[in-house]
Amino acid sequence: MPEFLTLLPPDQARSVLLSHLLQTIADFELIDTPASLGRILAEDITAPQPLPDFQRSTVDGYAVRAADTFGAGDSLPAYLNLVGEVPMGDAPAFEIRPGHCALIHTGGMLPNGADAVVMLEYTQRPGPAEIEIFRAVADGENVIHVGEDVAQGQVVQAKGSLMRPAEIGGLMALGILKVKVVRRARVGLISTGDEVIDPAQSPRPGQVRDVNSFTLAALVEKSGGSPMIYGLISDNFEALKNAAAQSLSECDAVIITAGSSASTRDMTAEVIRSLGAPGVLVHGINTRPGKPTILGVCDGKAVIGLPGNPVSALVNGYLFLVPVIEKLLGALPKPKATVLARLTINLPSQAGREDWWPVKLIAKHEHLIATYDADPIFGKSNLIFTLASADGLLRIDPDATGLSVGEQVEVLLI
Amino acid sequence: MPEFLTLLPPDQARSVLLSHLLQTIADFELIDTPASLGRILAEDITAPQPLPDFQRSTVDGYAVRAADTFGAGDSLPAYLNLVGEVPMGDAPAFEIRPGHCALIHTGGMLPNGADAVVMLEYTQRPGPAEIEIFRAVADGENVIHVGEDVAQGQVVQAKGSLMRPAEIGGLMALGILKVKVVRRARVGLISTGDEVIDPAQSPRPGQVRDVNSFTLAALVEKSGGSPMIYGLISDNFEALKNAAAQSLSECDAVIITAGSSASTRDMTAEVIRSLGAPGVLVHGINTRPGKPTILGVCDGKAVIGLPGNPVSALVNGYLFLVPVIEKLLGALPKPKATVLARLTINLPSQAGREDWWPVKLIAKHEHLIATYDADPIFGKSNLIFTLASADGLLRIDPDATGLSVGEQVEVLLI
Repeated sequence: MPEFLTLLPPDQARSVLLSHLLQTIADFELIDTPASLGRILAEDITAPQPLPDFQRSTVDGYAVRAADTFGAGDSLPAYLNLVGEVPMGDAPAFEIRPGHCALIHTGGMLPNGADAVVMLEYTQRPGPAEIEIFRAVADGENVIHVGEDVAQGQVVQAKGSLMRPAEIGGLMALGILKVKVVRRARVGLISTGDEVIDPAQSPRPGQVRDVNSFTLAALVEKSGGSPMIYGLISDNFEALKNAAAQSLSECDAVIITAGSSASTRDMTAEVIRSLGAPGVLVHGINTRPGKPTILGVCDGKAVIGLPGNPVSALVNGYLFLVPVIEKLLGALPKPKATVLARLTINLPSQAGREDWWPVKLIAKHEHLIATYDADPIFGKSNLIFTLASADGLLRIDPDATGLSVGEQVEVLLI
Repeated sequence: MPEFLTLLPPDQARSVLLSHLLQTIADFELIDTPASLGRILAEDITAPQPLPDFQRSTVDGYAVRAADTFGAGDSLPAYLNLVGEVPMGDAPAFEIRPGHCALIHTGGMLPNGADAVVMLEYTQRPGPAEIEIFRAVADGENVIHVGEDVAQGQVVQAKGSLMRPAEIGGLMALGILKVKVVRRARVGLISTGDEVIDPAQSPRPGQVRDVNSFTLAALVEKSGGSPMIYGLISDNFEALKNAAAQSLSECDAVIITAGSSASTRDMTAEVIRSLGAPGVLVHGINTRPGKPTILGVCDGKAVIGLPGNPVSALVNGYLFLVPVIEKLLGALPKPKATVLARLTINLPSQAGREDWWPVKLIAKHEHLIATYDADPIFGKSNLIFTLASADGLLRIDPDATGLSVGEQVEVLLI
């Protein structure tokens, strides 16, 4: 089969593809910070004020001058005069002079004159205004200083950051109620194959419903993109070329899932060549599933041809489409979600080829981070329910001729 | 501090809480299958027809009667008459008689009479209607039989399944265009603390902006829930009790984040006791951060009191709130996303206490599944930017007195 003369390893194929993608999305949206979960920041965010912006106690106790506690211990307590209680949410109206102290709660503002806090459990109150201190504190002990979390003008979130619960909370703490996020990456999805029909129709003998438009749309959505489904295009060069050209002009990237026969796959490569330079970069990848995958770039935009087999298409979507979306969004690299597990059986693999096996993960107990067995899912059909019953994908390195039962493996969650 | 007389280990505390939650959400929504990403199925789904519903070829090649190829090899090929080409998406109009074969593409429908497919690479075509076969095939070889992926009436997705790209594709393959999913879990969020203000306001000295309502709302959203923010309630028993009672009547679970002082934490416990039986189940958990966490159930609904410290509140949200949402949704257990890494420094820990350390993960290369260093993040401030700069949380077992540099650890992604 001439189309597969040179099969690139998947990591190398991905590098070739990404190295040709030079444009990230320049458009942004200004949205409410609490609504930004899962989005990518379009600019650096600097702190408009320090955090905290007043000296705060980190414990419940007594605000003191540290020097007044020096030498204090269980057998020789220091005695201080209680001059007040720091109100929560307000500046104390008094100051701490030598020999004085004030009751303070966690998060309370340190009165003027105080420079440390003694924890409540190291004190006693023998009289209404008398406090015994059984432990010395150093200057600054149990106190958060102004700007200790974040200094004014500091970059608190870099461009490309993923907005997670902590990022959202951090920006709200600074009173940053709106953020600029990168517009979602528009990914055009085209399915071909004369045997493929709209899922709303009833298949006649020889026909199957379209699966790839929907698995890939969900993958795009999950990865921060906005899927645009262009529907089913018949196995006709002009029709496919026109649909792909339109999609390329409207989207940031285009995915063509070929019909399952070799002829429609070849047509996909021809179409990619016709759409713009440099065209096809990689035709054939040394991986299973996914050997017929085609990676191309036309006028700066990724155009990927995925196999029609739904398992191949989705697995190769994880391997190639998701990284393209991340690059388009300018997302800073983030670790992929994996789970550590022990393999339940020997798994053979052809040396030189990278395999991705669907596996089911079986928890051995109910802890939050459990230990797992990884149970490979077999089935020659390679149809979509193989993946629907899988928790993740197990990678077998091209250098390996397989994996052994009991081996510790990392499973990519899907 | 009498409130912490008995500190339960986190796993045990979570078990106590979950064992008191007997109601899952009974309401469902009927939505379009492609829009169901991230939702939980409200019912078992059975296959209305088999998949595939016709015999299909898994390769490009020639459809044959296997018996006609028996004994064929490189030195002694079998010779068959080519009688046609199977059209994609249609039933072949011919049948395969003894000594006959037909060109077939991957995914094509097997003609009547044929029972196997010989791959193209093991054939030659010396004349227009003559095919040489260099390898024998067994009955059924390179063929997917009717129902081999999914049999008619088989449960293809169980109630409680998470809808991911593969599940969506699988249901579309069966023509199931709408699904019943569990209504999102409504989680009421109440913040207390006289020092806490709405983020839209400018803090006066001693005041801080509300963070917890927003970090927890994002966590709820991310976990399949629907956050309902009840806002800031002053440190007043009746006001807090009324807000909590209203939230309890409108939501499936209620979270109260206490102000940071011990007195407002005590008030939260009192309010939970007053809302319904059994009330407070766990008051104080042997973990850091999160010791002051309060777990309660009132009339069958979880009511959780989280510490006011934003790091504690969010970490304990992962430990206790997310499992409550999963239980409410009836979600089947799924592995948590983790990453395997090597610790960059020694990390001390108090024996008997479970610690959760924020860590940054540093990739050592750019593979899809990379190897990582885990760099613990220090800082006495415990403020929210500690978590915003972290990739995950590292658990230190209560039995350990710390972890050593170079140790392999599993980091929970946040």
